[in-house]
Amino acid sequence: MYDQKNELTLRQRRVQQSIAAMQADACIITSPVNQYWLSGFVFDGYLLLYPEGEALLFIRRPAGITDGRAISIRKPEQIPSLLREAGYALPRRLLLEADQLTFNSVTRLQAAMEMPETLNISGELRRLRSVKSDWELNQIRESSQLHRQVYELIPSLYRRGMSDLELQIEIEREMRLHGSVGIFRSFGENMDIFMGSMLAGDNAQAASPFDYALGGGGISPLLPLGANGTKLLPGMTLMVDMAGNYRPWMDDMSRTFAIGEVPDLAFEAHQLSIDIIRTLEQTAKAGTPCADLYLLAEEMVQEKGMQSYFMGTTQQAKFIGHGVGLEINEPPVLTSRSKEILLTGMAIAVEPKFVLPGIGPVGIENTYIIHENRMENITLCEEEIIVL
Amino acid sequence: MYDQKNELTLRQRRVQQSIAAMQADACIITSPVNQYWLSGFVFDGYLLLYPEGEALLFIRRPAGITDGRAISIRKPEQIPSLLREAGYALPRRLLLEADQLTFNSVTRLQAAMEMPETLNISGELRRLRSVKSDWELNQIRESSQLHRQVYELIPSLYRRGMSDLELQIEIEREMRLHGSVGIFRSFGENMDIFMGSMLAGDNAQAASPFDYALGGGGISPLLPLGANGTKLLPGMTLMVDMAGNYRPWMDDMSRTFAIGEVPDLAFEAHQLSIDIIRTLEQTAKAGTPCADLYLLAEEMVQEKGMQSYFMGTTQQAKFIGHGVGLEINEPPVLTSRSKEILLTGMAIAVEPKFVLPGIGPVGIENTYIIHENRMENITLCEEEIIVL
Repeated sequence: MYDQKNELTLRQRRVQQSIAAMQADACIITSPVNQYWLSGFVFDGYLLLYPEGEALLFIRRPAGITDGRAISIRKPEQIPSLLREAGYALPRRLLLEADQLTFNSVTRLQAAMEMPETLNISGELRRLRSVKSDWELNQIRESSQLHRQVYELIPSLYRRGMSDLELQIEIEREMRLHGSVGIFRSFGENMDIFMGSMLAGDNAQAASPFDYALGGGGISPLLPLGANGTKLLPGMTLMVDMAGNYRPWMDDMSRTFAIGEVPDLAFEAHQLSIDIIRTLEQTAKAGTPCADLYLLAEEMVQEKGMQSYFMGTTQQAKFIGHGVGLEINEPPVLTSRSKEILLTGMAIAVEPKFVLPGIGPVGIENTYIIHENRMENITLCEEEIIVL
Repeated sequence: MYDQKNELTLRQRRVQQSIAAMQADACIITSPVNQYWLSGFVFDGYLLLYPEGEALLFIRRPAGITDGRAISIRKPEQIPSLLREAGYALPRRLLLEADQLTFNSVTRLQAAMEMPETLNISGELRRLRSVKSDWELNQIRESSQLHRQVYELIPSLYRRGMSDLELQIEIEREMRLHGSVGIFRSFGENMDIFMGSMLAGDNAQAASPFDYALGGGGISPLLPLGANGTKLLPGMTLMVDMAGNYRPWMDDMSRTFAIGEVPDLAFEAHQLSIDIIRTLEQTAKAGTPCADLYLLAEEMVQEKGMQSYFMGTTQQAKFIGHGVGLEINEPPVLTSRSKEILLTGMAIAVEPKFVLPGIGPVGIENTYIIHENRMENITLCEEEIIVL
């Protein structure tokens, strides 16, 4: 059975080891994702963790939290005196989430804490979170099962004459009915996305400002990504890469559909994607360098002369996979220059994709759990092109 | 006709006056909302504006932008030499969006720009954006018309035995079919939300960490807000406050529904909300202090002895309205301590709401455009409680 208290304690212990290793006095956590990871809930306030002992929660909102660890505050300037009253030393070397907190939030917090030296813990937390507990991995498994259920409904949701967007809207509805929380969490600035990506025909060639595997023009100048209202016409392929956010820990899965008959090139490139996936499945396990996986895929693409279609055309992504968890873009990243290696307990999405001018995008994306001697596919869902 | 070039030039001129007034050499804009406001599109990169001349766009992604003002870069460290080559002086006093950019992004950008003094332009841009052009106001009007069309469908979407969430999902689908872009933009940290808020019965009493008018428990510990799966039962009220994001510039509107017969108290409190709205409509125009509007509403609430239900129960919001535009929470804010006054061209949402234990939330929210001598309601949609 899942013992949340124990799970949270273990996570805090791992962060405490990092605090000690970084020779810091404490860390303060403020981002929703990391607050949830370390306390089990989201609040407006500050989670303060020393190298030893339980986390202290200074909470502005919501009102009326009864958790024993919670201390109600109106503003961060109250924290030092509350700490002193409780017999704690004020941290002089303080870790903050400098990749998530705004510049102003950091400077205010630093002043409130009486000007400690600050260091960044964002990357370290991402590194820690990239290795999941069995319970966390099970969340990803559960998400992938619901993800599969929704994808299997797609042929029944499709009606002739639909646009990419109209089909996406019916999929979004099924996602929500299957428990998708809606919000699709990614790390970093300039990573806007709404519930996922649907790319049909030449819209898959449209370059986007966001750092996802593929782009698309979108329907608004404020969100230039994904479906753009392309009418789904015979001869076109459609890639569905909608969010697997059915649990706080997510999976990631893409599948390709064909509208009626599509050219042989679509099947060839799609088969190459599956072949790459099978080859990586034979190779990857704990200890495998992430760069090796990218280079292996790239070599197979070059052998078939498919480089100009690989991961886009006008703008080509330079990765073929990434960690998944509470955010959709966690470490490690599968690039040619990655220094990371796969570790037992990681969850990664692998997505060798191709964009074919005049046809559309093809390929698949699966999510894997890394074990000592293999990687396990948890997105067990038809991989061939599905004809609508 | 809409002349985008002219609209963008006017916005840039207003920012340039602020740069001069703040005695700065230039500003760099990086957030999607402000990039869009100043250039008409979103990109991964830097919009650099001097006190005179056209904005320079340093673009990392997307590839292949053909805009004449665009300069392709790989990293911000390239900007100084590109500026020098083009004959520009390097800014020594530089405005940045310190309420939006992460601490690390600011420090990297500061180093890349050879260590200028930095100041915050976030608040000033929000102040400038709060006064809209006719074209921007027209976007909000168009959004409100689609918003109304969707709300008018709600009785036909309702089926007996539904939960708040099931009804919300059907509304979300209609929103998307009517052109909602999906993503619901708010300013600030700890302001997560997905497409809006639906609150039925006592879930409206649940305090949330986020600074919206009302709370709700939500369905995930990672998004504790809004509908929580409450079954819609006779005697209960339901407040629909879904996003009006049918255009980049948004409107905001809430309406109340009753499941069968509800107690008289619901109608009394709802009528008080309408009465407050009518009174504020008689009062507000360009020049009106925002605090006056809050205090007027508060006085009417006290006269009726309804304070304990006003803007929540366990946690009460301290505002009854806010500006709307590219973000849902723009200036001004209608609070008792606001120093802001209404200005011609502002768009504000006014939302005096009540939460009744054992019944649910009641009240309405309208969006208004501020004119010289009045404020104009642009959310013309049935205001009485609608019985489902």
